[in-house]
Amino acid sequence: MSLTIVRTVAELRATVGEWRRAGARVAVVPTMGALHEGHLSLVRAALAEADRVIVTLFVNPRQFNSAADLAAYPRTEISDAAKLAPLGAHVLYVPDGDQMYPDGFATTVSVSGVGEGLCGAFRPGHFDGVATVVAKLFLQTGADLAFFGEKDFQQLHVVRRMAQDLDIPVEIRPCATVREPNGLAMSSRNARLTDAERMTAPKLAAALFEAADRIAGGAPVDETLAKASARIVAAGFASIEYLELRAEDDLVPMHTFDRPARLLAAAWLGEIRLIDNVRVQPAD
Amino acid sequence: MSLTIVRTVAELRATVGEWRRAGARVAVVPTMGALHEGHLSLVRAALAEADRVIVTLFVNPRQFNSAADLAAYPRTEISDAAKLAPLGAHVLYVPDGDQMYPDGFATTVSVSGVGEGLCGAFRPGHFDGVATVVAKLFLQTGADLAFFGEKDFQQLHVVRRMAQDLDIPVEIRPCATVREPNGLAMSSRNARLTDAERMTAPKLAAALFEAADRIAGGAPVDETLAKASARIVAAGFASIEYLELRAEDDLVPMHTFDRPARLLAAAWLGEIRLIDNVRVQPAD
Repeated sequence: MSLTIVRTVAELRATVGEWRRAGARVAVVPTMGALHEGHLSLVRAALAEADRVIVTLFVNPRQFNSAADLAAYPRTEISDAAKLAPLGAHVLYVPDGDQMYPDGFATTVSVSGVGEGLCGAFRPGHFDGVATVVAKLFLQTGADLAFFGEKDFQQLHVVRRMAQDLDIPVEIRPCATVREPNGLAMSSRNARLTDAERMTAPKLAAALFEAADRIAGGAPVDETLAKASARIVAAGFASIEYLELRAEDDLVPMHTFDRPARLLAAAWLGEIRLIDNVRVQPAD
Repeated sequence: MSLTIVRTVAELRATVGEWRRAGARVAVVPTMGALHEGHLSLVRAALAEADRVIVTLFVNPRQFNSAADLAAYPRTEISDAAKLAPLGAHVLYVPDGDQMYPDGFATTVSVSGVGEGLCGAFRPGHFDGVATVVAKLFLQTGADLAFFGEKDFQQLHVVRRMAQDLDIPVEIRPCATVREPNGLAMSSRNARLTDAERMTAPKLAAALFEAADRIAGGAPVDETLAKASARIVAAGFASIEYLELRAEDDLVPMHTFDRPARLLAAAWLGEIRLIDNVRVQPAD
């Protein structure tokens, strides 16, 4: 079975309707394209659990808070399709802007709590854009399962909260961050790093892993984070937007390590904003 | 077949799932209870078009901008059920607050454009509450059709926009406002009018119908609305929140009558806020 490219909601619904009548379990993997091994790991996880897998490719203007970032975002549909076909994904859904936001479009889905702070504080409107487009993709595809990477850990929380709160009958499956051998979390934005920046970039992950180990071992949280920040800047990052310990299940800020947590960071390397996060687990 | 009362999302989904497997077409009529002939006309319209009809009864705290109005809103579940059973409605869905807004609930659906101005200007947060709860009811019921009264004309636009924008596969059916013989638009809040107020209340509709006729006949819009306002206040209304001519299809404000329009008003009679609207049709 080959990869079918679908560009309209009507065609998507017709395709999924046929699958449903045949009793198939349907999964969706929402992406903005420029697919890397992280995305492909989501597709493989989806194929392992569902009968039919839809990968969506839509560079959603509503989740960009910077016009320059939107303009610079890579568009590589042909090579994306070429990566998906051999895996066995069934549909690549590539809606154009009119399918997603026709004239008169006026609705916004917002998630408070988990959508606040961290990236929510530094990218105004970003998570409204994410929650709105993902609600649409869930309802257009009617998927039973949806796969998201833990790389965008706050996004995962926002999407899960939104689907639960709006009673969208989809199960959210988080998948572990895929990293380069040097530790750098895979990201479509990595393609925009200079050679020199590529040498520096992995030091963000290294600092996070080291701080997570120290905190798990009993080091004081705020002092450990201050040292990690200094290390990231010393490595060559221009600035740190945030470096915070948050509870894994509800993203509440933590200053004492007393339950499963995530250490999350966003930092600028030249013109590129990188984010990453690692789990902090009790040593026991 | 008798009316079944359902109180949980799980039970609702199981019931609708059985209907779907039998190929039934499902309609929903969202209400806040205190059912009157206007609601019953929606249920009859739903029964005429669908195989199975769910009436929802939920006094949604998120769409009240006044705690006093919420507290005073009539709750009459037993008599509501008694009115629905003889019509042949299949399910009365009466979720409690925990089913609709469990701990941690954090999502808001907002509609700009048609949700702004008119009631949107005078009841901050009201249409966010409406759009959010109706999105949930659509997704909980999975209905193919949903019936709303034109009495709440702006709400009808907000709900239609929201469903279209979020790709919820439900068709919205507007139904004409049902009026008392004296012209008063039926409303659950009418039960709170004093005897003296009941004599005055129909004068709002009378002023709207007269102004609509004049505008349709070529009278200047703003001058006609000013006279109608004066007439409403002279009749005994305490104040007018708005009295506006708006395009029927997108609610854009109109000061010249050059396409199908609605004349919409909100006015206070004692402690009660009444709304009404009438169509303005070219005389041709």
